[in-house]
Amino acid sequence: MTDRIRDFLRSRRDDGPCVVVDLDIVRDNYEAFAHSLPDTSVYYAVKANPAPEILNLLARLGSSFDCASVGEIEMVLATGAGAGRISFGNTIKKERDILRAFEMGVRLFAVDCEAEVEKIARVAPGSKVFCRILCDGAGAEWPLSRKFGCAPEMAPRVLESAHRSGLTAYGVSFHVGSQQGNVDAWDQALASAAAIFREMAERGIQLSMVNMGGGFPTDYLKKMPGVASYGEAIFRALSRHFGNRLPRTIIEPGRGMVGNAGMIEAEVVLISNKSDDDPIRWVYLDIGKFNGLAETMDEAIRYPIRTERDGDAKTPCVLAGPTCDSVDVLYEKAPYELPVSLSIGDKVLIEACGAYTTTYSTTGFNGFAPLASYVI
Amino acid sequence: MTDRIRDFLRSRRDDGPCVVVDLDIVRDNYEAFAHSLPDTSVYYAVKANPAPEILNLLARLGSSFDCASVGEIEMVLATGAGAGRISFGNTIKKERDILRAFEMGVRLFAVDCEAEVEKIARVAPGSKVFCRILCDGAGAEWPLSRKFGCAPEMAPRVLESAHRSGLTAYGVSFHVGSQQGNVDAWDQALASAAAIFREMAERGIQLSMVNMGGGFPTDYLKKMPGVASYGEAIFRALSRHFGNRLPRTIIEPGRGMVGNAGMIEAEVVLISNKSDDDPIRWVYLDIGKFNGLAETMDEAIRYPIRTERDGDAKTPCVLAGPTCDSVDVLYEKAPYELPVSLSIGDKVLIEACGAYTTTYSTTGFNGFAPLASYVI
Repeated sequence: MTDRIRDFLRSRRDDGPCVVVDLDIVRDNYEAFAHSLPDTSVYYAVKANPAPEILNLLARLGSSFDCASVGEIEMVLATGAGAGRISFGNTIKKERDILRAFEMGVRLFAVDCEAEVEKIARVAPGSKVFCRILCDGAGAEWPLSRKFGCAPEMAPRVLESAHRSGLTAYGVSFHVGSQQGNVDAWDQALASAAAIFREMAERGIQLSMVNMGGGFPTDYLKKMPGVASYGEAIFRALSRHFGNRLPRTIIEPGRGMVGNAGMIEAEVVLISNKSDDDPIRWVYLDIGKFNGLAETMDEAIRYPIRTERDGDAKTPCVLAGPTCDSVDVLYEKAPYELPVSLSIGDKVLIEACGAYTTTYSTTGFNGFAPLASYVI
Repeated sequence: MTDRIRDFLRSRRDDGPCVVVDLDIVRDNYEAFAHSLPDTSVYYAVKANPAPEILNLLARLGSSFDCASVGEIEMVLATGAGAGRISFGNTIKKERDILRAFEMGVRLFAVDCEAEVEKIARVAPGSKVFCRILCDGAGAEWPLSRKFGCAPEMAPRVLESAHRSGLTAYGVSFHVGSQQGNVDAWDQALASAAAIFREMAERGIQLSMVNMGGGFPTDYLKKMPGVASYGEAIFRALSRHFGNRLPRTIIEPGRGMVGNAGMIEAEVVLISNKSDDDPIRWVYLDIGKFNGLAETMDEAIRYPIRTERDGDAKTPCVLAGPTCDSVDVLYEKAPYELPVSLSIGDKVLIEACGAYTTTYSTTGFNGFAPLASYVI
């Protein structure tokens, strides 16, 4: 926890759970990416946390932006960053949304099939398109599904169709999987990308760019490699597969940019046992899967949790949220050790909550407000 | 689809996915519950769909309400229904929320441990409390976790502590699991409830009420028994375990009240194949897990899906949502059969979406608006 967050929470008067994001950490993260991959453009993945203060800061620092929708494009344009700094990175777009983006000045679009190329050719003539390829995601805590991207061997046909329809066949993108712990995970995908560059060159089309996606992790309970390690490994892999003709490259950090910059303050609502002979306490918080902690789904992300009694003896607890929904259990398969002295009404601090907390919050399930957010 | 929904959709001018709920069906459902269990009070589970029009209709019809939070209590009071028709059914409540409910007139509270009884005794003196017991949920499509309720053998102690602290030890509650397909599922839980009534009577405390919870299903792709079958089975079980001294009973239908009353209209955004040799088409809709169809999680609920081309030949498809999130895949393990002729831009109708769609929608993940809702 930073001093700034501590001071903010001490003086806060509102009730209920909240996330507090410290912009100083976001700035540090941006600079770490820019420094570790100096020849790579940073496109912040807006979906991780679209708070205007975060977008404004990143715009001032010179970041570009990966947007999933017209809504996110409008948020970025509101910072004053020009449309030239925007990638419409969603491979699934309505034609009328492509048109709206084009009218706002966006000229860079993701595709993974010919049908999407056709839409862009019709309503965003002359734009640049990059083709997303499937990537196995080994080493990621959340390997991605096959939802985005085509098989690498299909990409040249998709890119050639773009070229033939008057678009710029600009490059290739991939995503190595969220919370990727293996710094070498980019190697195989870059090999595929380089092969597509060669294949396209044989067809007389010169690609320019590799979008190396996100996947940069945040430290939760498990410590992950630092940004510098990723930068070195990615540069090695780029050199290995592209030699001294390096393409233009971009990365799309989201979690890695804001994850560790935010902290949630929550309250213990109830502590109970299910029966006299069950030693496991159930600890119920005023935050759960539906108002901020959706990423506990399948207990994938294990947030560090701090209490004011952490010096006391600890025993295992099941942790659950406040709603009347039986799915709203945070950690049960692998219980958390929490202080025996933890009491109803105590505050708890949940670390590394800057990404995918406000945005995954429901509109008000069970009548509880969406997660309050402060950016300081 | 009802004629009213068809007419509404035909004249709708707004863009994007929406759910339309037909109040005539809600009325039919309410009357079916009231008719099938004539001596049981209906407490609508507000969390299933808190649209004001639905709450207003049910208030007029005489329904009572199961509320999960102060927010939901305020929604019910806004209909003009008095606080006497409200149960604060969440076993996890902040003491200050209990106080606020008490100040608004609420006098009926759920508990499942002594710590919760103590809060109620402090700030809601003289109120009625019922103790929720664990129930194995066999036969439910979504058996509940152990989140709510205590072991039945612990309940007498909890209820006695309520009695001793000046509260009315009012009864017992349980929940047989969501989308419960076995009409006899209530039998075992009612046996446990009756045993608690006897145990409490031996301690000199007469309980009055059994809250038999929800679990009443909606027909999705799989046809379920009708409300009348549940009513008969529940009445048989009540008689078996309570003889001719039937307690006051309440039920808390949510899904069973509104599920089949709503229909989502969505649009096909993209259809593609991942590679040349993969016969499975991916069909991407403008609705997914984050803007309305959260209950497709683990492919638990399989919504009936209609298109205008259903007479054509069909082949299996993976169905996915519009966000840049790899989790946002609706059906992949068991693909859906959809018409070969289905095209980008086509509308699809997703049936039985009246419950747990608007409320599970995120505030705007990926910059997409929460699910639009119309109640007609």
